[in-house]
Amino acid sequence: MTELDWVREASRLIGLPRNPEIVQGIGDDCAIYRMKGAGRDLLFTTDMTLEDVHFRRATHTAKQVALKTAGRGLSDIAAMGGQPLFVLLSLAVPDDLDAAWRRDFLATLASTTMLAGAPLIGGDTARADKILCDIVVCGWVPKGKALLRSGARAGNDIYVSGRLGGSALGLARGTGSAWRRHTEPQPRLALGLALREKFGATACMDLSDGLSIDLLRMAHASGLEAAVETVPRFSGASLAQALHGGEDYELLFTVQGGAVLPAEFQHIELTRIGAMVKGTPGLVRYRGKPLPPLGHDHFRS
Amino acid sequence: MTELDWVREASRLIGLPRNPEIVQGIGDDCAIYRMKGAGRDLLFTTDMTLEDVHFRRATHTAKQVALKTAGRGLSDIAAMGGQPLFVLLSLAVPDDLDAAWRRDFLATLASTTMLAGAPLIGGDTARADKILCDIVVCGWVPKGKALLRSGARAGNDIYVSGRLGGSALGLARGTGSAWRRHTEPQPRLALGLALREKFGATACMDLSDGLSIDLLRMAHASGLEAAVETVPRFSGASLAQALHGGEDYELLFTVQGGAVLPAEFQHIELTRIGAMVKGTPGLVRYRGKPLPPLGHDHFRS
Repeated sequence: MTELDWVREASRLIGLPRNPEIVQGIGDDCAIYRMKGAGRDLLFTTDMTLEDVHFRRATHTAKQVALKTAGRGLSDIAAMGGQPLFVLLSLAVPDDLDAAWRRDFLATLASTTMLAGAPLIGGDTARADKILCDIVVCGWVPKGKALLRSGARAGNDIYVSGRLGGSALGLARGTGSAWRRHTEPQPRLALGLALREKFGATACMDLSDGLSIDLLRMAHASGLEAAVETVPRFSGASLAQALHGGEDYELLFTVQGGAVLPAEFQHIELTRIGAMVKGTPGLVRYRGKPLPPLGHDHFRS
Repeated sequence: MTELDWVREASRLIGLPRNPEIVQGIGDDCAIYRMKGAGRDLLFTTDMTLEDVHFRRATHTAKQVALKTAGRGLSDIAAMGGQPLFVLLSLAVPDDLDAAWRRDFLATLASTTMLAGAPLIGGDTARADKILCDIVVCGWVPKGKALLRSGARAGNDIYVSGRLGGSALGLARGTGSAWRRHTEPQPRLALGLALREKFGATACMDLSDGLSIDLLRMAHASGLEAAVETVPRFSGASLAQALHGGEDYELLFTVQGGAVLPAEFQHIELTRIGAMVKGTPGLVRYRGKPLPPLGHDHFRS
């Protein structure tokens, strides 16, 4: 069972929300809530960062775990073209965890989200055998303006920010600039805002699980086929790492075909990698051949 | 280190949110967000329900874990006098978990929160060695009307709903009506609403960790001493279970001294257990003697 299947199963069991204030339910980077009469839509995302699943205490510092936890949540807000408002944190830790670990983690998490505009305002605590972090981030966009995965149209150009595969390379190497890339994700908040306000993005999502599977999700949500011709690689990353490696937290987005974008935005490269076409919904081709979704799927069995 | 210490440490590290839209940060049952110009305040709570901490797979069914997860979150909304709006869920499960377990859990969780008015609209999924559930519930109250822990005044009467110690008794017995009490918490949403709208409650919180520690928190937040004279016991529960047992999910609240309340509300007893007095802030006395906070504290070391 893949995450797509899981989302389908959950949606079928749950039914569509009948509340008109729920603009977007399960299936995008964030859920969207619209308060009656309000000019803002509120965005909500939750992201778990679990010991021995997403990090190891032996190789990741408390500060790096905090940066990863904050980065994953903030990146989902960036993916909708949103601005962060506030954060909640559920944190479970072992009894024997060093007090300095918790202090470093909390201080880094709180200052990182605060700098992004979102103070830590609540959450839950518990004991557990392993460290479990679950962050909730609330953000906002003007009413009706959120960038969705489903907004791509046939003929749209597909872009990515930055260079891909750095996080996968870093995980393999355990050192250097690629390791920093893996442990210190940089959520693309300013870019997400610019994509919505200035660059006319039609669809957007963040690259958390790898291009091959994330682009499949966007193509599926938009009912289109994706034709990829080129992928910008992080220095030293293999093609496989760039196509399938997860946790780059760059933005994947579409714009009207032929739209002229700057080559970079605040020193982040913007690269056209291909186009959306009519065809098999959810199919991704790389240079003409079907690209299997080998990226990370939390529910593939 | 106790949870109160943890809250103090986190608050000191984090600083007070400078955003005027954050009405209540860390330290109550819910955080409160007020959108500029809106007539509603939004309430946010997160609650972890973890395998081998809060439940065991051998003794709790998927349905019971879902009822507990939903009940814990909804109870925090009830404690503020709020009405549920929507829910997000972070769920991590082992690879080898029976598909029926996940289906039963999701179906029960989604239908329980939906019946309370709050559809499941998003969340996160992951793999883990043990089942980890973290629920986010958003609710609302009219602007400025949330019931806080800090609202009690000297001379106020202290009340609880229902009878206490049933959950602790159920955990010890593993069967019967007390076990149902433990495994199928009933969040007091209608009562919370009535306390705010009709009964003029000055402070309110839910009893999740045991009367002795939860009343300490309310007394501490209100800067008062609590004098308890009597406690309504669940049939078969010991005095210790009623005073210190957690997870009853009844409401603890205060009203103006001498206010006349009905003996029950929708078949739930309302019992005056004592009064708030000037004295040592955070001290709880039972029949004149200091009552040690033996209730469950997730961070006591």
